[in-house]
Amino acid sequence: MSTDLFPQAHSKHDLERGFALAPRFNADGLVVAVAQHADTGEILMLAWMNAEALKLTVETQIAHYFSRSRNELWKKGDTSGQLQDVVELRVDCDQDAVLLKVRPRGDGGACHVGFRSCFYRVLENGVLVEREAPLHDHA
Amino acid sequence: MSTDLFPQAHSKHDLERGFALAPRFNADGLVVAVAQHADTGEILMLAWMNAEALKLTVETQIAHYFSRSRNELWKKGDTSGQLQDVVELRVDCDQDAVLLKVRPRGDGGACHVGFRSCFYRVLENGVLVEREAPLHDHA
Repeated sequence: MSTDLFPQAHSKHDLERGFALAPRFNADGLVVAVAQHADTGEILMLAWMNAEALKLTVETQIAHYFSRSRNELWKKGDTSGQLQDVVELRVDCDQDAVLLKVRPRGDGGACHVGFRSCFYRVLENGVLVEREAPLHDHA
Repeated sequence: MSTDLFPQAHSKHDLERGFALAPRFNADGLVVAVAQHADTGEILMLAWMNAEALKLTVETQIAHYFSRSRNELWKKGDTSGQLQDVVELRVDCDQDAVLLKVRPRGDGGACHVGFRSCFYRVLENGVLVEREAPLHDHA
């Protein structure tokens, strides 16, 4: 899906080696975004961005996503206080995924269940095991 | 989309706090997978898995994905030698994303363009800047 907020890459070379951020939004107008803690390297969450969310993230240096369940722009932390200051923004080779290195504000968490990271469960011998305690009770 | 390879969570609590790996595949039968280097914490790539790929990854401890462009199971590294040994597999709160902590074999890279990580470009003042040299020439 094209957008007037970002250019489109006109060749494979431009897409992979070009200087222009030319994200390839999917049929729903979204790219996937991974948020990684800028200091610890921990993967905090995975979410989606539409063109508006990506543009706002670049402009404000605060992570904005698109909530697929609510079908609306989602400034992460607006209600929880877990705003994410963006230290670095990377894009992958075919520009359909974004990596944000962030510092979360508030209690430092990112997950609505109450954990610091959404990836709080490890598969061990076929069973999911929680590897950390929640920062706060399940909302 | 349901599959007979994995159970389905029957409640929000089971999905978020349960012991069963019960991935929520999207309408295309896929979950998104992030591969992170087990030792350095570097995000190497983002790809997709169908139920078969996820099951094979769990069983063999070698990362398997689903290639959306080729529409087939993709044992990463089968041709490049960049097989990924899976050290740890995590799932996120709503079980539609998987995090693999991996050690890549071969030249240690993951990106088809020739870089170690697919996220080799940083956005700086509106321009994409390559932050590392390729491991090998662009195929």
